[in-house]
Amino acid sequence: MLETLKKEVWEANMALPRHGLVTFTWGNASGVDRASGLVVIKPSGVPYDELRPDDMVVVDLYGNVVEGRLKPSSDTPTHVVLYKAFPSIGGVVHTHSPWATSWAQAGLPIPALGTTHADYFHGEIPCTRAMTGAEIQGAYESETGRVIVETFAGLDPMEVPGVLVHSHAPFNWGTDAHNAVHNAVVLEEVAKMALHTFALRPGVPVMDRMLLDRHFLRKHGAKAYYGQP
Amino acid sequence: MLETLKKEVWEANMALPRHGLVTFTWGNASGVDRASGLVVIKPSGVPYDELRPDDMVVVDLYGNVVEGRLKPSSDTPTHVVLYKAFPSIGGVVHTHSPWATSWAQAGLPIPALGTTHADYFHGEIPCTRAMTGAEIQGAYESETGRVIVETFAGLDPMEVPGVLVHSHAPFNWGTDAHNAVHNAVVLEEVAKMALHTFALRPGVPVMDRMLLDRHFLRKHGAKAYYGQP
Amino acid sequence: MLETLKKEVWEANMALPRHGLVTFTWGNASGVDRASGLVVIKPSGVPYDELRPDDMVVVDLYGNVVEGRLKPSSDTPTHVVLYKAFPSIGGVVHTHSPWATSWAQAGLPIPALGTTHADYFHGEIPCTRAMTGAEIQGAYESETGRVIVETFAGLDPMEVPGVLVHSHAPFNWGTDAHNAVHNAVVLEEVAKMALHTFALRPGVPVMDRMLLDRHFLRKHGAKAYYGQP
Amino acid sequence: MLETLKKEVWEANMALPRHGLVTFTWGNASGVDRASGLVVIKPSGVPYDELRPDDMVVVDLYGNVVEGRLKPSSDTPTHVVLYKAFPSIGGVVHTHSPWATSWAQAGLPIPALGTTHADYFHGEIPCTRAMTGAEIQGAYESETGRVIVETFAGLDPMEVPGVLVHSHAPFNWGTDAHNAVHNAVVLEEVAKMALHTFALRPGVPVMDRMLLDRHFLRKHGAKAYYGQP
Repeated sequence: MLETLKKEVWEANMALPRHGLVTFTWGNASGVDRASGLVVIKPSGVPYDELRPDDMVVVDLYGNVVEGRLKPSSDTPTHVVLYKAFPSIGGVVHTHSPWATSWAQAGLPIPALGTTHADYFHGEIPCTRAMTGAEIQGAYESETGRVIVETFAGLDPMEVPGVLVHSHAPFNWGTDAHNAVHNAVVLEEVAKMALHTFALRPGVPVMDRMLLDRHFLRKHGAKAYYGQP
Repeated sequence: MLETLKKEVWEANMALPRHGLVTFTWGNASGVDRASGLVVIKPSGVPYDELRPDDMVVVDLYGNVVEGRLKPSSDTPTHVVLYKAFPSIGGVVHTHSPWATSWAQAGLPIPALGTTHADYFHGEIPCTRAMTGAEIQGAYESETGRVIVETFAGLDPMEVPGVLVHSHAPFNWGTDAHNAVHNAVVLEEVAKMALHTFALRPGVPVMDRMLLDRHFLRKHGAKAYYGQP
Repeated sequence: MLETLKKEVWEANMALPRHGLVTFTWGNASGVDRASGLVVIKPSGVPYDELRPDDMVVVDLYGNVVEGRLKPSSDTPTHVVLYKAFPSIGGVVHTHSPWATSWAQAGLPIPALGTTHADYFHGEIPCTRAMTGAEIQGAYESETGRVIVETFAGLDPMEVPGVLVHSHAPFNWGTDAHNAVHNAVVLEEVAKMALHTFALRPGVPVMDRMLLDRHFLRKHGAKAYYGQP
Repeated sequence: MLETLKKEVWEANMALPRHGLVTFTWGNASGVDRASGLVVIKPSGVPYDELRPDDMVVVDLYGNVVEGRLKPSSDTPTHVVLYKAFPSIGGVVHTHSPWATSWAQAGLPIPALGTTHADYFHGEIPCTRAMTGAEIQGAYESETGRVIVETFAGLDPMEVPGVLVHSHAPFNWGTDAHNAVHNAVVLEEVAKMALHTFALRPGVPVMDRMLLDRHFLRKHGAKAYYGQP
């Protein structure tokens, strides 16, 4: 079942430690098959160097296991909330990558300060509000997804393919699991450079809006002209 | 004698440079056999790439050498004080890992700022008080152990599996030597992110207590639901 | 056509990820053949590990493709403006290397603080002014080149072989593509050390002008005495 | 001539990039044969990956080449001044290692903040005064050596085996070239941690003098008890 997607999601998971985004098992990637409404996700707490494609777990959009010998990632309820709320996304990645996590711990969004940011994120990368006691003590992982969705009211998730969860860490998404990993790498790089930019110049203003648009649209949308046709 | 434990402790020591926690010989790991009351520890000042399992030294809980051709780590008296005071621990690790050591040099505890911290440390990671002249000039390494134990009055060492020794560096512990290394890696990662969080937002408040509990208890204790059953 | 230059430019491009200067495809190197007035440059958006010498694209000094199956780098118009304005340069490199980019995002020049800087850059490394709306919405990449050229009014580009483009990232150049890569590595190292120097001592004064001259002239110009004859 | 020393000095030079202390050719190591009064040193500007033991150059204590096909390091006059002034040293290393260089650029000594420092440096690591115009424009490299020697008036160079040269970079020394490299690695690690300690706690006081003594003397001097007998 979904063998191609399983291989793709497994490859996306394996790319996380290779890009330096995860320590131990602190990360997971998933992908969705929109036709069947099924999600393939990493099993919980399995070390990356032991992970094989057929360890991937298949769940439905309510987080019920449909196939797989192992328990899915404990963050599965967050992933499925995102797939339901954001119909345009095909993959989700969660890591505790250190630079992005430092911003999440500060509870601060990452403002757009330069073209590296603008090439992938069409505006600031938001940070969710702190979760309430009821949310934390209730269905915590689903609530994490819901607070992300709340944060994106009025935002197109494909224009800003990532978020910082307050006091926690980033989530990213993309057209598929591979693209979500790509965006997670970009977020980490952007988070690092923004922190150093603030160190050099506290209170630095955000970049020019026209420059932001020019770079985002150079890589995305109908008039994109970056890369090969 | 204790061949399995020697191999385990050797592997834990070899993991320290692999995780980037030690420069030269600046670190040591040990494990205890509670049945016999014997501790296996790294020899003093031997480079990691020359270290073999049968170089490990066996000492009793007073630090007396019971078996081994080599002198045990000069920090052995600290390790045995910890084993005597904390009956629940099975392994101890000492490193000068740079981010954690920077906090120790600042004489500051690491506050809980996010879920990466909360997944492993159920509250702030304390820093010991400065040692007195008498402690430094006396049985210094034993006194180092005693000041750690003093710091943990009222704390469960398995809920906060590590400490910063003032003007010195971290010690970690765990269920065994391997788990102590794991906690040393986490401490270093948490120390790095906390420093950057403070750089972004001086005076950042500690994380929500309920979120701290939720994450710690998600991975530890009777109701843990992270990982495979 | 220009097979030697293609191989040299390909090697310069391949050196960028090896020196840790680029993430994904965020960089490009080119070289010019002054006799024919032709430029060899990396194709747009092709991953480095798939790049081969015959993927290089040949363009004229107006950016028109003269040879090559692939689209040239989207930054080609910037490169050709630099080649036309700076007759002494033979290679150009653009990256988003993180330390230099942090300075560019802060909109600040890198002052000369020590001999590492002075060995390669004969004075501060300038940052361009912010581009105007008309420049951004017009022929953006050419305008980027023109604002660099404007910044170098009164400066010898071979004495200061690099620049920070405001809210963007660095460009470097040199006697050939290989030398431009060399200067990009130096810029990144100098940017990192300058940021840390300011962290240690805000408002640190620039280095002594005589020391700057001594070091620059030790490696460059008629009386250079560094290296083998 | 001096084949053993040449091999040793070559190995010390090769260790510099392996420890991440040098970029390109920005570093050199030498060793002295006290019986003959001859110094073996790296040739100037030769890339490390092309360096072979018989490329090493033999000079006398006035910097005159006694043997060797290549020009010695341009820093040779600094090395020989140190060998003449400090009879107890057997090896010298110069690098532009980034953390130590950031302190040198700030013109600040590195205060002793913890036991990592105390294990190798018996007190603060000094920074030289800025050089005068006459020193810079005269026999610059010899004067660099002389300003280092001036800085060590009243200090034992074996108790503080390194220095920061103002607006420049570090020099280290030791019992031989290998030991000097070892001290250069320690300096870089100590410089990094001290910078981060200050970031966490500006104005942090220096460590307790008794703790400094205890750690230095635990590894050095007649009563040392670290390592194997």
